[in-house]
Amino acid sequence: MIISYDGTQYSGWQIQLNAISIQELIQKALATILKQEVSLIGAGRTDAGVHARGQVAHFKIENELDLRRFLHSINGLLPNDIRVLEVTEVPEKFHAQKDASSKIYHYHLCLGRVQDPFKRLYSYHVRDNINIDLIHEAAKLFVGTHDFTSFSNEAHKGAAAKHAVRTIMRLDVIEEEGGLRLEFEGNGFLYKMVRNIVGTILTVAKGKMKLEEIPEIFSAKDRRQASQAAPAHGLFLMKVIYPERNKA
Amino acid sequence: MIISYDGTQYSGWQIQLNAISIQELIQKALATILKQEVSLIGAGRTDAGVHARGQVAHFKIENELDLRRFLHSINGLLPNDIRVLEVTEVPEKFHAQKDASSKIYHYHLCLGRVQDPFKRLYSYHVRDNINIDLIHEAAKLFVGTHDFTSFSNEAHKGAAAKHAVRTIMRLDVIEEEGGLRLEFEGNGFLYKMVRNIVGTILTVAKGKMKLEEIPEIFSAKDRRQASQAAPAHGLFLMKVIYPERNKA
Repeated sequence: MIISYDGTQYSGWQIQLNAISIQELIQKALATILKQEVSLIGAGRTDAGVHARGQVAHFKIENELDLRRFLHSINGLLPNDIRVLEVTEVPEKFHAQKDASSKIYHYHLCLGRVQDPFKRLYSYHVRDNINIDLIHEAAKLFVGTHDFTSFSNEAHKGAAAKHAVRTIMRLDVIEEEGGLRLEFEGNGFLYKMVRNIVGTILTVAKGKMKLEEIPEIFSAKDRRQASQAAPAHGLFLMKVIYPERNKA
Repeated sequence: MIISYDGTQYSGWQIQLNAISIQELIQKALATILKQEVSLIGAGRTDAGVHARGQVAHFKIENELDLRRFLHSINGLLPNDIRVLEVTEVPEKFHAQKDASSKIYHYHLCLGRVQDPFKRLYSYHVRDNINIDLIHEAAKLFVGTHDFTSFSNEAHKGAAAKHAVRTIMRLDVIEEEGGLRLEFEGNGFLYKMVRNIVGTILTVAKGKMKLEEIPEIFSAKDRRQASQAAPAHGLFLMKVIYPERNKA
């Protein structure tokens, strides 16, 4: 399933005790339709407040499904800030998370003096004066294969990242109405990695950190060296990309 | 002031008993900043749930205002779904409502099988099959100078519209991602006029009314002849236009 959701009201993708998650709501809707409990595996665990336009998730069932009818039924059961956009049959071995070869995230910045009220939940309003050339320069330093330990909060989750080497194939800075959009494409993202990178790029763009400090932060392999994470509500999981073999 | 607001949470522009209006919230913020009660006159009374990107409102004060500081202060006091985008000094005789020569409204329709969750509060999801050519044809019939009694709910407000003749200069039907946008420009709009016109155009596009019936509805001068109003949340007041003489 390709899923789009407005993350504003939710505790994130993943099921949690005492909080409403997107995964839980979709799993409950699936149980109602399929008349059996199924386990739903998502491609990426978006945090509380993070949005998605192209989350991917899979589940396994034995019986045949009328996909057109299924799409209608599940959207009828879900709240209107969560929508299954597409459902397709995939090979039995397909795994939404493990098979993903890359993911695309967008981070939206609003740069005007006054924030557009229609973007308040979907873009981060930066009030400080920032140097846009420095955003472009800083972004370049994150492209390529690096150990992203300093830009990950994995250790804070109790499980240190043993393999923190990831490749960012593309980090484009694109002007859009009222601000900028940072487009990340990478083969994998550690916990809070996109938001920590955006936070650090903004520190540079505000003149509070030098460009030269970014390679030093990579080398330190220490989360405390990078800046505070940019807030969740500017972030969108746009697309999950799979190798061709996964087409049904 | 040029004001933008997400109307979702509000009872509309105009102050009402026992309901939260945009006018009231701005007037309260003005009273705090100016340390005096002022009366705020808006160009158009948007209904409950209707949005604005270019509402205009004026107020009069005796003393000088630091406009840059004022803009910062008022947005600091307002909830983040209401924003004053601009504030300028105008001639003393300026009247936001009476001086307006025309207004532009946009109505957004979402036409996909599945509604984009990010548009759920900002566009009307039409699930039925509709004929887009008929939307274009029907829209043309509303352009020009007509008696819009049949497309107005004025009588329902207890005050019958004596002068229901208005001119729609432009009603453009424009494709946008996931749907259509109807752009209305007119010299004045009666109560619920845009939404009643959109409702009637959609009835035609669904094949439930013939194009030829539209002139008959105009002639009848009877609100009951037209279709149900399209819902509030698809409608945006985009711009209020004034003659040049009002520039300060």
